[in-house]
Amino acid sequence: MAGQTCSAPELAALLTAGDRTGNATAAAEYICSKLETAALTSVDITTAVDTTYLLFSAYMVFAMQLGFAMLCAGSVRAKNTMNIMLTNVLDAAAGGLFYYLFGFAFAFGSPSNSFIGRYFFALKSIPSPGFDYSYFLFQWAFAIAAAGITSGSIAERTQFVAYLIYSSFLTGFVYPVVSHWFWSPDGWAAANRDPSASLLFRSGVIDFAGSGVVHMVGGIAGFWGALIEGPRIGRFDHNGRPFALRGHSATLVVLGSFMLWFGWYGFNPGSFITIVKSYGPIGSPIHGQWSAVGRAAVTTTLAGCSAALTTLFGKRLQTGHWNVFDVCNGLLGGFAAITAGCAVVDPWAAIICGFVAAWVLIGCNKLAERFHYDDPLEAAQLHGGCGAWGVLFAALFAKEEFVNEAYPGRPGRPHGLLMGGGWRLLAAHVIQILVICGWVSATMGALFYGLRKLDLLRISAEDELAGLDVTRHGGSAYVYDENPAGNGGDEGGFIMKGSKSTNRV
Amino acid sequence: MAGQTCSAPELAALLTAGDRTGNATAAAEYICSKLETAALTSVDITTAVDTTYLLFSAYMVFAMQLGFAMLCAGSVRAKNTMNIMLTNVLDAAAGGLFYYLFGFAFAFGSPSNSFIGRYFFALKSIPSPGFDYSYFLFQWAFAIAAAGITSGSIAERTQFVAYLIYSSFLTGFVYPVVSHWFWSPDGWAAANRDPSASLLFRSGVIDFAGSGVVHMVGGIAGFWGALIEGPRIGRFDHNGRPFALRGHSATLVVLGSFMLWFGWYGFNPGSFITIVKSYGPIGSPIHGQWSAVGRAAVTTTLAGCSAALTTLFGKRLQTGHWNVFDVCNGLLGGFAAITAGCAVVDPWAAIICGFVAAWVLIGCNKLAERFHYDDPLEAAQLHGGCGAWGVLFAALFAKEEFVNEAYPGRPGRPHGLLMGGGWRLLAAHVIQILVICGWVSATMGALFYGLRKLDLLRISAEDELAGLDVTRHGGSAYVYDENPAGNGGDEGGFIMKGSKSTNRV
Amino acid sequence: MAGQTCSAPELAALLTAGDRTGNATAAAEYICSKLETAALTSVDITTAVDTTYLLFSAYMVFAMQLGFAMLCAGSVRAKNTMNIMLTNVLDAAAGGLFYYLFGFAFAFGSPSNSFIGRYFFALKSIPSPGFDYSYFLFQWAFAIAAAGITSGSIAERTQFVAYLIYSSFLTGFVYPVVSHWFWSPDGWAAANRDPSASLLFRSGVIDFAGSGVVHMVGGIAGFWGALIEGPRIGRFDHNGRPFALRGHSATLVVLGSFMLWFGWYGFNPGSFITIVKSYGPIGSPIHGQWSAVGRAAVTTTLAGCSAALTTLFGKRLQTGHWNVFDVCNGLLGGFAAITAGCAVVDPWAAIICGFVAAWVLIGCNKLAERFHYDDPLEAAQLHGGCGAWGVLFAALFAKEEFVNEAYPGRPGRPHGLLMGGGWRLLAAHVIQILVICGWVSATMGALFYGLRKLDLLRISAEDELAGLDVTRHGGSAYVYDENPAGNGGDEGGFIMKGSKSTNRV
Repeated sequence: MAGQTCSAPELAALLTAGDRTGNATAAAEYICSKLETAALTSVDITTAVDTTYLLFSAYMVFAMQLGFAMLCAGSVRAKNTMNIMLTNVLDAAAGGLFYYLFGFAFAFGSPSNSFIGRYFFALKSIPSPGFDYSYFLFQWAFAIAAAGITSGSIAERTQFVAYLIYSSFLTGFVYPVVSHWFWSPDGWAAANRDPSASLLFRSGVIDFAGSGVVHMVGGIAGFWGALIEGPRIGRFDHNGRPFALRGHSATLVVLGSFMLWFGWYGFNPGSFITIVKSYGPIGSPIHGQWSAVGRAAVTTTLAGCSAALTTLFGKRLQTGHWNVFDVCNGLLGGFAAITAGCAVVDPWAAIICGFVAAWVLIGCNKLAERFHYDDPLEAAQLHGGCGAWGVLFAALFAKEEFVNEAYPGRPGRPHGLLMGGGWRLLAAHVIQILVICGWVSATMGALFYGLRKLDLLRISAEDELAGLDVTRHGGSAYVYDENPAGNGGDEGGFIMKGSKSTNRV
Repeated sequence: MAGQTCSAPELAALLTAGDRTGNATAAAEYICSKLETAALTSVDITTAVDTTYLLFSAYMVFAMQLGFAMLCAGSVRAKNTMNIMLTNVLDAAAGGLFYYLFGFAFAFGSPSNSFIGRYFFALKSIPSPGFDYSYFLFQWAFAIAAAGITSGSIAERTQFVAYLIYSSFLTGFVYPVVSHWFWSPDGWAAANRDPSASLLFRSGVIDFAGSGVVHMVGGIAGFWGALIEGPRIGRFDHNGRPFALRGHSATLVVLGSFMLWFGWYGFNPGSFITIVKSYGPIGSPIHGQWSAVGRAAVTTTLAGCSAALTTLFGKRLQTGHWNVFDVCNGLLGGFAAITAGCAVVDPWAAIICGFVAAWVLIGCNKLAERFHYDDPLEAAQLHGGCGAWGVLFAALFAKEEFVNEAYPGRPGRPHGLLMGGGWRLLAAHVIQILVICGWVSATMGALFYGLRKLDLLRISAEDELAGLDVTRHGGSAYVYDENPAGNGGDEGGFIMKGSKSTNRV
Repeated sequence: MAGQTCSAPELAALLTAGDRTGNATAAAEYICSKLETAALTSVDITTAVDTTYLLFSAYMVFAMQLGFAMLCAGSVRAKNTMNIMLTNVLDAAAGGLFYYLFGFAFAFGSPSNSFIGRYFFALKSIPSPGFDYSYFLFQWAFAIAAAGITSGSIAERTQFVAYLIYSSFLTGFVYPVVSHWFWSPDGWAAANRDPSASLLFRSGVIDFAGSGVVHMVGGIAGFWGALIEGPRIGRFDHNGRPFALRGHSATLVVLGSFMLWFGWYGFNPGSFITIVKSYGPIGSPIHGQWSAVGRAAVTTTLAGCSAALTTLFGKRLQTGHWNVFDVCNGLLGGFAAITAGCAVVDPWAAIICGFVAAWVLIGCNKLAERFHYDDPLEAAQLHGGCGAWGVLFAALFAKEEFVNEAYPGRPGRPHGLLMGGGWRLLAAHVIQILVICGWVSATMGALFYGLRKLDLLRISAEDELAGLDVTRHGGSAYVYDENPAGNGGDEGGFIMKGSKSTNRV
């Protein structure tokens, strides 16, 4: 801060000394250099604050991976617990390497063409202005979330090696390309495109935190995986009647859902990337990104709440009981839906978003059951279905003021249809849905199909009945009982017995 | 930052040009406009920093809901796990809607009378200066914490519909009114009352983060619920001897306790709401809210630590073993107690606070057992009893310097009795305890009584024996075993065996 | 901000009024006082931002204690679950008191000699410049992490009282002394030593976040504990063949590992302590601590990812299955290794760090098995072994630019050997490894030996076979089944049945 220290005697001397002109010049330089220092110090502090905001948001998004792991674990049968959790750990790990090597470059490498990025491989040239390490970390956490979604759809019947392949391909290529299109300033459909470029339908796609980019991508990938694998053994009987293959732990499901809720506060409000940004005249506390960030947290909250309550009563009417699995999924469906529009809609609209999302999920699940589609986590329905609704929702309810604040510099740009903003935004969002469906189907659908052809996709029926943990992962996830001598590890290393009637634990 | 750029030649010209007076005026305006810009930029940055601080604190307070869910789940029997967790999810969800619609307005709507707020319904007029979205989110997380406390007291025997009713009433009305009294600048007993209004006993109530406002409210509501419902079947035998109905998972209890500990760092230090605020001359790093915030985190930590250790040894002497359930409850009792005074006491005092809190909890539990009061989570004892102790503790140990920093603008105001601050603060705090007891008893006690009269409160004895999960929630929370063919889902969808084909879980 | 308000008319009057000299002096004072206020306001904001950064980092490091608790719980057999979790809770609680009373003073008390600090007992004189409450909280969270590591090594066979003794001794004395040596500006081997003092080998030790200071200390303490106690019954048969005594819950292991991963983002990047610090000319967004902080998060991530993947494939080749326990330990080994160098290496180097760490862990485990060393959590191998590798790694790969940024003021100081920085840093790091081994062995080794001599260390064989939870903690951690009447609490309060001899779960 030394440079900011102002010496009054020194300045006074300058204001009075000898030749008046020289004097004035020196005084002006003196004053200006101090003011300059103050301004630059503000720039430094601003950068530090924005980085703090982004980093802690990224940490919370990462915590969603823990949420996915627990949600998935609780939603599968006990015999496949280790399998699904291991895939979640490896999503993060393999995703870390591949996103570092390629993914980030494909997504945000700039300058680039509008289809795919081509700089920043292995973080070369990072940090660059606007692309610091914290930004990479944030985007990596998003990439692995997409892969985490897919893992749910193909749970309980997939070969481990298939998992490693699809996960790397998704985080390293398929997802980055989509995020380039919609989020990179170079992307052909981005709403924040470089000022010199024209916007899709003069609007671009406002998928703020990724109902489409993340959730639909993960959901559609999961859809093809689950479809190509076919249902788990026992999910539908010979007459086609469905049987619920219930998850083994509601506790883990609730734990995972709450962790995801927690992490979503990094995901949605964090997508503003920065927080120090005035929208109005400077110095007016309620007109800035800090307020918009809080609003995004509130819309996120309300959409989830509304979806959870709608599901609670909706399913109660259908099934006659209060189902915690369903409520958790409804909650997450509300979050997946609000993700696109969280930054540009009013809180009241978020309640509508969640309400509809709950019915979309219920409807998708009805369809899935009817067509004998089996998705252990309802991931395709939840992230694909509610994600698509969220993309449409944003196009219907985006508010002019908020759109112009979040995507500045293009006055008069389209906003939500129902808010009087015309059809352009909706058109762009329909395009987004179609393009994501097409791209993910063409890439991930083909990949899953190829894996099946190579017999690398599904495990054998015997292994499926026995469970993946015993056949592939060295034992059961749980050992609640054992022989007193502790030699339960002797033969096979695991039994989750019961054994004697007298045993005490 | 363009406005901050200073042009030395331009300024020099002004300092020298033609007519001396005009010249000086222009120069002064030039200089001042630059300085003004610097000052306003600081205001913007400050707002962003404070919002970042408040939002992440709010997220952590929200994470306490996960803590409550796991603590509750682990503390009940396996057969009621889904029930209690579902109530915790719905606390947050229903609380979200009701606090948005009414609760926040009742609590903080301003201007208002001193009893209840009446603005900001459905967040109308938000953001206003001092009432941004992040503030709503923070307060919502507090409201659902209060409801979460109560859910523990009435666990394992309450109809689900009763739960929905009391939870909405508590978060939407009862709790907001109390928080208005003590925390709103309009509240009749607030220590931060508007400067023009007089303080209760010239002091007001210093319940900084809510030992009374949150914990006593939740605890007393739970007390009436549990009292009116009566003990769980089997808790006391025909001769009145108590039997421990142990929770089903110590792991979940520890998980929940640690999550609550983590979240309490948002709850207590976060209650400062802002962090950029100098207490001394500006530019002196150790005299500011940033330091007080850290101190609050430290007092919180020490009170919990001290209570946990006291409980460990206290219970060891009584029971002969080292009990993890007890230690966790003692820990939380320490936190509940320090919550009122965390910002205004010295670290050494926090150790006393925790020490006494542990004995208060032990004493309350003795009383509860003696009077055949059954509270599965000890919530009334812990949050009500230790909360009340915390309110008194703050009135005894609040330090003059810290009180004047946290509640500025009224020099010479009363502080802790034992710190030489006179009786006024203690008098105000005794009033707080009485008023909260009265208000919550009148509202929540009446509600629970009415629900019982309408036969909406307690489930049938058969259902209680069978467990709520099977009778109301569609199955057991856990399925650790199943038929290899996966058709365990066939008849009922769950078995937690196990043994017999007829066993119920 | 009032002081920053600039009045143009007032200033203009000064620039023109009467006597020219007096006028200039007054004008200069006026301008300078405004500039001074701006500068001091920046100081305040900077302090608040740095405190926010440090506090939330501290909260995340604290969350690692939850991670350790779950990891430990899942890695032991069900019959010892409550025991190990209680030790984790008490680490934090006893650590809180002892670190408050002595530990922090021993570690960071200043001014002091180079061996041990001697100020700040019971936080006396806190806050002082550079030593605010938030700093204490951050360091406390580190201290309890060290104790948490050790608890894993001696799990499943240690008397509870021994645990209380060693834990207090470690957090209150052994660990603080080590942290004084390497992290206090007064420490004899610190790289950030006071400018007037000379550095060890003109370099000092760059153990940025504590691969040596935390992980080796915890690991070596655990090594001696486990060695002196000997293996658990059943771990090696009469012929010395090893049997895996598998942990009882893979779910808890994964939960704990993810929580640790999350918390490590507080541990490593948080060790910068501040974030508002320019490295280049002020006002250049990519040259500052904010960028280095993000880089530390990225190196941490990549090292863990690389270690996890290496372990996955390495163990697959050895054992034939994909093991989630191993992958989690490999992941954590990568984190423990990168901890020393996270701030001063390039991302690509972090991948090497993790790769080698995985093999170090595999090798140490081979050695342990060969020499019949039994460490239920592999804590000595993981934190001791990979920690030591991490210390060497930092000495090999530390980059000149990053070293000078993180440890400024000594141009030309040594850096990584393989980066052309000479042998001095490596020499200092070898000294660090030797000294830590010596000190911890002399203190903790002696303590464990003494405890054994006093028969306070290991529990009886009967108790070990029955499990600590039943014998010392009042029951089992889990009660998944019970009599319908709820009187399972009748005799003993817990049964985790069970029942028939043939059921498998």
